[in-house]
Amino acid sequence: METNEKTFRYAIIGTGAVGGFYGGMLAKAGFDVHFLVHSDYPQVHQKGLVVKSVLGDFSLPAVNAYPSVEEMPECDVAIVALKATHNYLLKDMLPHVLSKNGTVVLLQNGLGEEAEISTIQNVQHVIAGICFVCVSKTGPGYIHHLDYGTVQLAHYTSDDSPAGITSIMRRIVEDFGNADIPVDCSEDLIESRWRKLVWNIPFNGLSVVLNNHTAGLVNNPDIRVLILDIMKEIGEGAHAFGRTIPHSFIEKMIDDTIKMKPYYPSMKLDFDSGRPLEIETMYYSPIQAALGKNVPLPRTSMLYRQLRFFNSTRKGL
Amino acid sequence: METNEKTFRYAIIGTGAVGGFYGGMLAKAGFDVHFLVHSDYPQVHQKGLVVKSVLGDFSLPAVNAYPSVEEMPECDVAIVALKATHNYLLKDMLPHVLSKNGTVVLLQNGLGEEAEISTIQNVQHVIAGICFVCVSKTGPGYIHHLDYGTVQLAHYTSDDSPAGITSIMRRIVEDFGNADIPVDCSEDLIESRWRKLVWNIPFNGLSVVLNNHTAGLVNNPDIRVLILDIMKEIGEGAHAFGRTIPHSFIEKMIDDTIKMKPYYPSMKLDFDSGRPLEIETMYYSPIQAALGKNVPLPRTSMLYRQLRFFNSTRKGL
Repeated sequence: METNEKTFRYAIIGTGAVGGFYGGMLAKAGFDVHFLVHSDYPQVHQKGLVVKSVLGDFSLPAVNAYPSVEEMPECDVAIVALKATHNYLLKDMLPHVLSKNGTVVLLQNGLGEEAEISTIQNVQHVIAGICFVCVSKTGPGYIHHLDYGTVQLAHYTSDDSPAGITSIMRRIVEDFGNADIPVDCSEDLIESRWRKLVWNIPFNGLSVVLNNHTAGLVNNPDIRVLILDIMKEIGEGAHAFGRTIPHSFIEKMIDDTIKMKPYYPSMKLDFDSGRPLEIETMYYSPIQAALGKNVPLPRTSMLYRQLRFFNSTRKGL
Repeated sequence: METNEKTFRYAIIGTGAVGGFYGGMLAKAGFDVHFLVHSDYPQVHQKGLVVKSVLGDFSLPAVNAYPSVEEMPECDVAIVALKATHNYLLKDMLPHVLSKNGTVVLLQNGLGEEAEISTIQNVQHVIAGICFVCVSKTGPGYIHHLDYGTVQLAHYTSDDSPAGITSIMRRIVEDFGNADIPVDCSEDLIESRWRKLVWNIPFNGLSVVLNNHTAGLVNNPDIRVLILDIMKEIGEGAHAFGRTIPHSFIEKMIDDTIKMKPYYPSMKLDFDSGRPLEIETMYYSPIQAALGKNVPLPRTSMLYRQLRFFNSTRKGL
């Protein structure tokens, strides 16, 4: 292996639960990490980050924290961990923080956000990082990592073809591995995104509409049938893009959820805390994508309408 | 017209809002009406019925009230106004109260209940009475008729073919008309049932799931789209039985609901009062009927599962 490659400098765009956790892991391992911190800046600037994790607790009393991208140094890799509802900010932010021919690692749910990000100045590569993790921010600078943790990386291509395992992915995988972040590679972003939606669409939406946690949903016999129907429907969406989601994968998602401790998915936590919901990227984007291939997703569409209804009527907005 | 036909004697099986209102109208007009009264028997036996109605208030200080069918006289027509969840009682009740070759007028929502009722001893004719009425029971013996009132009669046939306007229907229409009950005839029960479901399925179910009244649902732009989608889906169900529900009918349902005062559909009132919900006859029966013709109703099925979830988790059951 060549050793003349310089070490990557990492920017964490959005130091919430996900950004704080993965950025914290990289910083703990000695990587050069720079955190953009919004409302928690005073606390993180003065006291750093505290991470309570099933992989082992740690504190970082001093981190490189910035209240705005203008003050950040140029980085090779920008790990974007904003809520997808704030992605409209990226076209102004990334040119400040990303070096020419830089790489974005997008740690978000949903579908289809990569295309626009790939057109932003200085962005050469967009790599999706699909997170299988239960992590919450319990206070400014306080992160609680409850379960799981794997990041699945997949390289975006403009024609939606599988990119395979690219060299830039390998380098990031190596860094993540050295930081003890469980990491996994996918050759095909589109398949990975649809596989993630298989779980996200039923559990996030139904937890809000039915006001319940994963166990309350999956252990109710009617809702288990509904979840299976929705998951099969997402499989039809994937199929419209030439990707196959086997029934065994759906069964495993159900079985894994039955075994999980009762868990409120991120959309339910956001809903209850009055935060914006990622409804459009998680529901509207796949619905429209499948519809563009003449595949309607009626249950997903119904959940989308119900979520928008609850979002428009909830208190505190 | 022949005049040697004897006047019909009517039994009202179930003196709730619907039975109390229509039975009360018949009794007020001088018809020979006998009321089966369950929990409200002491009050109705002693004080009769009080009806507050947009068609004109009236009191019936003395009505023929019975706590059980065993005490009732033999009647020519049994107007069944039980909750559909209690239809299993009819095979034991009707033989006591219905004369040989008697007629059942079934004032219920849903689909498919006529078939089993038609097999009960003494039942010769089953006529569905599809009620377009806003009426509630406000206390024992107290009925409040808020809006509308038409009963649409349609004769059941065992092969689901249109029965046309039968002579027994004409006699009941005449009696209802003489009692100032707005009445209307349908030649085709199946078409009438599916048309009624076009409104009932979205508004009853969504009022429970989204905890709102008709205006809150139909005036929300997302839910209006969802209601239209559900209504079109019910149209596909009707189509599976060779019946056509024109788009103009769907549009009129929406427009009429927009013009209505905010209204909690019967299922929402039942839900909030801890009463049983007519989920199976209003949702499961049409879903299974359409599926039997290879037409899935995904949105209706999703609503069915959500309703059963709420029904299983609500307090007070």
